[in-house]
Amino acid sequence: MYKIGIVGASGYTGAELIRLLNNHPQAKVAKIYSRSFAGQNLSTVFPAFYGSKLIFQDPEKDDFSDLDLLFLAVPAGAAAEYALRFSGKIIDLGADFRFNEHTLYEKTYGINHKAPKLLTEACYGLPEIFRSEIKKSRLIGNPGCFPTSIILGLAPLIKAGYRGDIIISSLSGTSGAGKNPTEAQHFAHRDENFGPYKVGNHRHTPEIESILSTLSGQNQKVVFVPHLIPAIRGIVSTIYVDKTESLKKVRDLYREFYKDEYFVRVRQADETVETKNVLASNFVDLQLYEDSHADKLIIVSALDNLIKGASGQAIQNMNILFDLPEKTALESFPIYP
Amino acid sequence: MYKIGIVGASGYTGAELIRLLNNHPQAKVAKIYSRSFAGQNLSTVFPAFYGSKLIFQDPEKDDFSDLDLLFLAVPAGAAAEYALRFSGKIIDLGADFRFNEHTLYEKTYGINHKAPKLLTEACYGLPEIFRSEIKKSRLIGNPGCFPTSIILGLAPLIKAGYRGDIIISSLSGTSGAGKNPTEAQHFAHRDENFGPYKVGNHRHTPEIESILSTLSGQNQKVVFVPHLIPAIRGIVSTIYVDKTESLKKVRDLYREFYKDEYFVRVRQADETVETKNVLASNFVDLQLYEDSHADKLIIVSALDNLIKGASGQAIQNMNILFDLPEKTALESFPIYP
Amino acid sequence: MYKIGIVGASGYTGAELIRLLNNHPQAKVAKIYSRSFAGQNLSTVFPAFYGSKLIFQDPEKDDFSDLDLLFLAVPAGAAAEYALRFSGKIIDLGADFRFNEHTLYEKTYGINHKAPKLLTEACYGLPEIFRSEIKKSRLIGNPGCFPTSIILGLAPLIKAGYRGDIIISSLSGTSGAGKNPTEAQHFAHRDENFGPYKVGNHRHTPEIESILSTLSGQNQKVVFVPHLIPAIRGIVSTIYVDKTESLKKVRDLYREFYKDEYFVRVRQADETVETKNVLASNFVDLQLYEDSHADKLIIVSALDNLIKGASGQAIQNMNILFDLPEKTALESFPIYP
Amino acid sequence: MYKIGIVGASGYTGAELIRLLNNHPQAKVAKIYSRSFAGQNLSTVFPAFYGSKLIFQDPEKDDFSDLDLLFLAVPAGAAAEYALRFSGKIIDLGADFRFNEHTLYEKTYGINHKAPKLLTEACYGLPEIFRSEIKKSRLIGNPGCFPTSIILGLAPLIKAGYRGDIIISSLSGTSGAGKNPTEAQHFAHRDENFGPYKVGNHRHTPEIESILSTLSGQNQKVVFVPHLIPAIRGIVSTIYVDKTESLKKVRDLYREFYKDEYFVRVRQADETVETKNVLASNFVDLQLYEDSHADKLIIVSALDNLIKGASGQAIQNMNILFDLPEKTALESFPIYP
Repeated sequence: MYKIGIVGASGYTGAELIRLLNNHPQAKVAKIYSRSFAGQNLSTVFPAFYGSKLIFQDPEKDDFSDLDLLFLAVPAGAAAEYALRFSGKIIDLGADFRFNEHTLYEKTYGINHKAPKLLTEACYGLPEIFRSEIKKSRLIGNPGCFPTSIILGLAPLIKAGYRGDIIISSLSGTSGAGKNPTEAQHFAHRDENFGPYKVGNHRHTPEIESILSTLSGQNQKVVFVPHLIPAIRGIVSTIYVDKTESLKKVRDLYREFYKDEYFVRVRQADETVETKNVLASNFVDLQLYEDSHADKLIIVSALDNLIKGASGQAIQNMNILFDLPEKTALESFPIYP
Repeated sequence: MYKIGIVGASGYTGAELIRLLNNHPQAKVAKIYSRSFAGQNLSTVFPAFYGSKLIFQDPEKDDFSDLDLLFLAVPAGAAAEYALRFSGKIIDLGADFRFNEHTLYEKTYGINHKAPKLLTEACYGLPEIFRSEIKKSRLIGNPGCFPTSIILGLAPLIKAGYRGDIIISSLSGTSGAGKNPTEAQHFAHRDENFGPYKVGNHRHTPEIESILSTLSGQNQKVVFVPHLIPAIRGIVSTIYVDKTESLKKVRDLYREFYKDEYFVRVRQADETVETKNVLASNFVDLQLYEDSHADKLIIVSALDNLIKGASGQAIQNMNILFDLPEKTALESFPIYP
Repeated sequence: MYKIGIVGASGYTGAELIRLLNNHPQAKVAKIYSRSFAGQNLSTVFPAFYGSKLIFQDPEKDDFSDLDLLFLAVPAGAAAEYALRFSGKIIDLGADFRFNEHTLYEKTYGINHKAPKLLTEACYGLPEIFRSEIKKSRLIGNPGCFPTSIILGLAPLIKAGYRGDIIISSLSGTSGAGKNPTEAQHFAHRDENFGPYKVGNHRHTPEIESILSTLSGQNQKVVFVPHLIPAIRGIVSTIYVDKTESLKKVRDLYREFYKDEYFVRVRQADETVETKNVLASNFVDLQLYEDSHADKLIIVSALDNLIKGASGQAIQNMNILFDLPEKTALESFPIYP
Repeated sequence: MYKIGIVGASGYTGAELIRLLNNHPQAKVAKIYSRSFAGQNLSTVFPAFYGSKLIFQDPEKDDFSDLDLLFLAVPAGAAAEYALRFSGKIIDLGADFRFNEHTLYEKTYGINHKAPKLLTEACYGLPEIFRSEIKKSRLIGNPGCFPTSIILGLAPLIKAGYRGDIIISSLSGTSGAGKNPTEAQHFAHRDENFGPYKVGNHRHTPEIESILSTLSGQNQKVVFVPHLIPAIRGIVSTIYVDKTESLKKVRDLYREFYKDEYFVRVRQADETVETKNVLASNFVDLQLYEDSHADKLIIVSALDNLIKGASGQAIQNMNILFDLPEKTALESFPIYP
């Protein structure tokens, strides 16, 4: 039984890691950490977990030496420090290990990277694309929620040579913004309310472009506009690209590309893609359309931002690192309705 | 591996049975039945289940002989017919086997009972109250969602001798009303909209009174008003009774009564009970309050109507029938947020 | 044109006063006040009001001498101070002038009343019950949202002599909790979540009991449990009383009692009461049921907590004070859907 | 007082016309028509309108001769027939009079136009663009909800000469789909659920292209993907075009273009556009962004689909036809929260 630690377990992704790992037959949450809640029971912070025996510990007072793996759900900058303190395997749900080189990270997040040399030990944790590299890495930069939905939607096309314009309109439930109360997320304000935010300057844009550029071997730009939707979970990305092949050929390309991927479901031609079909699961649904009169191809992807977009993917990465079946603890179908 | 059949698998409780059993190590959904969808894949009806190989069969054309247990999620009246056709174990999610005698059933549901003699083989499937009887029964009448929340909220008090007034205000998400589109459940109508329905004549009232009367040994009446809430899942029952003991003593009584029950969580005195803490789990949360200036005791219970209020409880009953650990496939913590 | 000032205009009830008065032909919002936002445009705080010329002023720096009436939407305690500073007509949306005598107020709100002598100039602003007293008063204590729904639901019965038990289960949208972000109102927490709060100790209980006692001429207790619902607006109160008359007689009593009241709609026997039918209007819908087998009468009332439960009722009171038709600026039908 | 008739008054846009006209000082809803509900009171269909005296009449049994104007909220094809029967002014909320010539209409809606000759008397009812033509027309084709949001977002740019690519991602609340219950709009399905629909083949695409082509004087194509959002009302359109000018110049262009338009609010540079800021009002909010690193300009527009996107705009057109101030009955600020 692998012994797992979670630092920053008092946020939404931490709760989701605990819930999912609770059903894992070979891994066990041994310790949870939180500076603010050290000494308190898990169920004080998350009353839904009433019955759990887990108690938050102060991460400053432990050396993690009895742990097999550490999940980090901490603010940008903090993860690099933990990676210096703990020499075991780390999966960081933040951005500290998502970039190949520290300058783009520093420009994007506005802080100095605390451990730039460790980036050589790190891998971008998108299993469907970088599985073999993940297996060999000590540090995993678990992808952002929007980038996961977008890169999985574009990878087959980019790898097949697409180099044209890419315009992305993404929609997201509110849980991606985290647990701290804000005016934007105040129920009476957010309910029955939707619209774009951080237009043209979202931190996920450099992450998306960086990985797409890796895949294409050249500099790839995207236009990315996220929208906030009055729902708890879910991301839909609608991606507009030039039509360079018939829809049939593109669909075949996607089916072939993902034919061995349990979590990526390239849906049938007549099926609708919507978040409800993936909620509470690690699945990504993909759909392809053409707008023939305007010569555009439209790719749609949907996922649960807290699972395939965060904690589920993190566990998928953990399974890879431990050489376990990748689906372990992640096989559940979505909850419906 | 037990082989399970589900008749009426195209509704919400059917989907939930399939999802939960998918994680069961000793039971397997071998066949799903639906008259309307016979021949179609499960994912045609529930696109969330894309990837499943299950195909709906016509229940009229099978004799269920290779099955170990049948779940029935069919309209009132139909379950009794299946119980005549199949001599194995049956868990009926409807009302056909919830009543001791057929006359109250017939008055409540306005139809003749098709198999009144089978009622002697049947047991009300509320494990925390009737576990030993369930173990010995062939036919289980799985309780209604409101009755589960209410009877578990009242059982300790009634068994301790309470015989006074009982007034119940229940709130429910909309999934209890099923999958068929109606004006009352049309999104633009239901969203931002709440209020009571079936005031004074809900079908669950006789069921609640019947079981409470069994527990008390005398005729017990209740006033029950359900309210429809703009949420998908969840039931909260707020129960007003006379205060005959100190709150401390009542809390001790409840803690003692449920001390071995994994799924019933009598919460700490300062904790809030709300549906979010039980969603997507088989837990029931209970809380106790007093209104000392008016000499009333207030009991609050919360559960997920499709799990502890339906399919989860049905699997709990199945585990009892098969002598498996009762928590099997039901241990998950709630999904939060 | 009456010149109106609003102190504390940066909250939800302030916004609603501004919106409603914007359509008033004989009253005009001349000044809005806020300490925190003094100097800023109304639309900085409420972007929905873009185009308005109103600018927040510091209420400490004005003597209100050019105003005909002051609405106060300020914390408990502050209103009494304004009433000492301004000798004109005041409608307070808080609790400072809702109680006949200061001791109950002080016990309930935990602060000393700053102007207990002024209570003799004050009237409880529930027009359908106290219209003639309102007309003669300088200070109006605008009722709380829950009390409005409950007192209007009980007044005919109490005035007709009812003195039995009263149990009230109320449901409320979240806007009643105000504009400040909190964990309880964080969208990802509140959405799909409902349950009771402040059980047995809500501040509106003494207000309800105080007014009912005035109506009955003797001490009247109630049991009151509010529930929070994932909706922005709306209150439903379900009130359980003993059945002392036939439903027909009670319905006739209510119809007669409210026959001249435009804003109180005693619905037809077969009609559903739900919040959607009153949202964005000053209407209160009332419905009556009996639970004949348990000898209880059930009264249901529904209103928009920010309109009939706050700002709409305040304008209704203003119209009375100015001897204008009571419906002025309040005649709109609800918004549907 | 102008006498107004509404045919098809039993749908959402009909209800909204009645509600808004109820506050109109110079126009009065004299008659409402519905085949299905003829003989029934308005409040039977819309319980929110309890108190109204309006009764549905059969439109087949009237010649509308005593009416000054007819609003039509009927299925495609039916409006043309009414326009042949009634020679007075007509505002059609459907598509029968939105196209210059009948062939594009017939291709789009799959039916023959019943009165193609009348198209010469018709005008596209977008006041901010076609005000002077509207004033002179007998028949007004009230624009679709998506086209209103998109054309107002693009008109300044197109009129200034833009001829490049146009990609539109629109989000819509569910009320645009109408009042009839469907699986897609069933609350338990729709809540917490969002995604694109009718990708590449929505009926509003030809309408948008047709009007943009009129404005540009040449054939203008667009890519348009609508998304369904779990909210009752509201449309947001996010429009991606090539950046040919500085953002500053484009903002100046839009401010100048709409400087006399009360209902179009070009927001300040730092302001967020979201549906909440326009709900229950006739306003359209516009915002402009640049994605400088990818050389794209992003235009965002938001409106209430049932008001500026339907019934409010229809009344705006009516005011123009009657030479009344255009804001009459439409001046209200949005409802917040």
